Amino acid sequence: MRATIMPKAHEVRIDNVPDAAIIEPTDAVIRVTRACICGSDLWPYNDGPNVEGQRMGHEAIGVVEDIGSEVRRIKRGQVVIMPFVDSDGTCLFCEEGLPAACVHRGFFGTGELDGAQAEALRIPLADGTLYPIDVAEDDALMPSLLTLSDVMGTGHHAAMVSRVRPGGTVAVIGDGAVGICGVLAAKRLGAEQIIIMGRHEVRIALAKEFGATDVVSERGEEGIARVRELTRGFGAQSVLECVGTEQAMDTAMDIVRPGGAVGRVGVPHYEVIKDTRQMFYNNVIVGGGPAPTRAYIPDLLPDVLEGRIDPGRVFDRTVDLDGVADGYRAMNEREALKVMIRP
Amino acid sequence: MRATIMPKAHEVRIDNVPDAAIIEPTDAVIRVTRACICGSDLWPYNDGPNVEGQRMGHEAIGVVEDIGSEVRRIKRGQVVIMPFVDSDGTCLFCEEGLPAACVHRGFFGTGELDGAQAEALRIPLADGTLYPIDVAEDDALMPSLLTLSDVMGTGHHAAMVSRVRPGGTVAVIGDGAVGICGVLAAKRLGAEQIIIMGRHEVRIALAKEFGATDVVSERGEEGIARVRELTRGFGAQSVLECVGTEQAMDTAMDIVRPGGAVGRVGVPHYEVIKDTRQMFYNNVIVGGGPAPTRAYIPDLLPDVLEGRIDPGRVFDRTVDLDGVADGYRAMNEREALKVMIRP
Repeated sequence: MRATIMPKAHEVRIDNVPDAAIIEPTDAVIRVTRACICGSDLWPYNDGPNVEGQRMGHEAIGVVEDIGSEVRRIKRGQVVIMPFVDSDGTCLFCEEGLPAACVHRGFFGTGELDGAQAEALRIPLADGTLYPIDVAEDDALMPSLLTLSDVMGTGHHAAMVSRVRPGGTVAVIGDGAVGICGVLAAKRLGAEQIIIMGRHEVRIALAKEFGATDVVSERGEEGIARVRELTRGFGAQSVLECVGTEQAMDTAMDIVRPGGAVGRVGVPHYEVIKDTRQMFYNNVIVGGGPAPTRAYIPDLLPDVLEGRIDPGRVFDRTVDLDGVADGYRAMNEREALKVMIRP
Repeated sequence: MRATIMPKAHEVRIDNVPDAAIIEPTDAVIRVTRACICGSDLWPYNDGPNVEGQRMGHEAIGVVEDIGSEVRRIKRGQVVIMPFVDSDGTCLFCEEGLPAACVHRGFFGTGELDGAQAEALRIPLADGTLYPIDVAEDDALMPSLLTLSDVMGTGHHAAMVSRVRPGGTVAVIGDGAVGICGVLAAKRLGAEQIIIMGRHEVRIALAKEFGATDVVSERGEEGIARVRELTRGFGAQSVLECVGTEQAMDTAMDIVRPGGAVGRVGVPHYEVIKDTRQMFYNNVIVGGGPAPTRAYIPDLLPDVLEGRIDPGRVFDRTVDLDGVADGYRAMNEREALKVMIRP
């Protein structure tokens, strides 16, 4: 079968690899019907792969082709959402709603588990990992459903951790697909003021359609001053940090108001959280991490199915496997917001 | 009148100072009936005062002697609890239950406002700051009521921020009065396992009476390993950091389990929060700061009045103003746990 490999920085190619197959009795194999490229795939794209021959892709919808002998809940032929980590569904973290910290957690497409930018994929712990949906594999809702694998769930996680509340003030750092989904999540949770920090015209336009009330295109000190100005000098109650750079985190800590919270979902490319005294005296909360997207699906799915949210609009380009390399290039150059793959 | 002054490190003395008097029309003056020495008073005691002639003390119960012309709610003769900060009671932070971040906030006994280890004290913004109680000024419950000014409210804050829940696992770092009150707060909130990290025999005994189920006397790596051992290898859901040193915070980050939270109430004597990637991948939340003790009084007061909690047991010594200097010495040498002052 064909799968996406990253041999080195700035190089992505499609290789012929051994067919995905059941190894453990708890495995399933899915035929990937939709996958996509994530902003976080651009970190190895720029810095080099985590492992030799890294198999890429951690977001997918697929059709179950095969199941192991101990798989009970998942059936052949089901259309399923695949979260970006696997999880057993039974450990104490899964039971507490944090499958992203499952004791058996592995990340797809990072070197830990194979990647979803491929014709098929082995899914360990299929019963715990996969979320079956009663939707035809070519339904028009597929783009929005695919975002429940990662990007919409991740934006929602940032909003949950940063305690977005009805009537609240929110600032979203980053106009990537996660940031834009963060805007949608904040709107869905009832926020009144949603400030998006970014400067890419097309993305900002989508963020506004998703509910952003204010746009701050300045960065650094100027951006901080502008957010404060927009929030009566106090800063935002909820800050969604959807980038992961040191500058983004510094900004987050300077625009969150006393008693507020920062929800981090950008993979941190910095060593420490600074300003710990300011954070303390302002009673600021910092949290976040890999989103438990599997646990959020029951909440978010009805809103997608009934058309109340349409996060699939973050996809502005669709490619087949042969177009994946160009898809990476386009996302890296911010020419495309998010690229969907139909293998 | 007589008041406690800290001229330099390791020196505390009682000076004659001008009588406390109304300055602003929103002020009150209280005659201090109970005050005490706080663990945080030992930071300037060891490192030197914040300002020249720092007036010490930020915890008190008193009787209202005088009120300014614009004070409406507080009346002469009332017995009142004085939280360790003043607050207007009307700003958006006060309304959101975070008076410790009031836009008019000032800290008593730090150089910002005068100190409570004195015969009397001017209370700015009396209507917002003071909490009247219907208890005689010499009631036997005074020690426990006095803890609502700071130490019990602060332990409760650590427990709230670290999301202590019924049936939860909790670790408390620090066997000072705040840590011990944190144990009591965790027990009150229904925690099942409460690990106290400390090594002072008498304090540990009290922590056990307050609900600690396990004691870890080791520090550093050994202490971390021991807490993990006691929590099935995962760490605690809620960690109450009641010290404020770098080592205490490092320990907190290593004993909190995925999805868990660290509530910091020890004034941080470190610059940064390390291990930000571990914190991220484990979806750990860090929060805390000066406790909004004023906002917690309505919750905690009935439990004190009806005898369900007796945090006043943290006081193991009582002095008059002449005994304050020796009280500081005794607390600094860990000879006394917490010293009450009857001016």
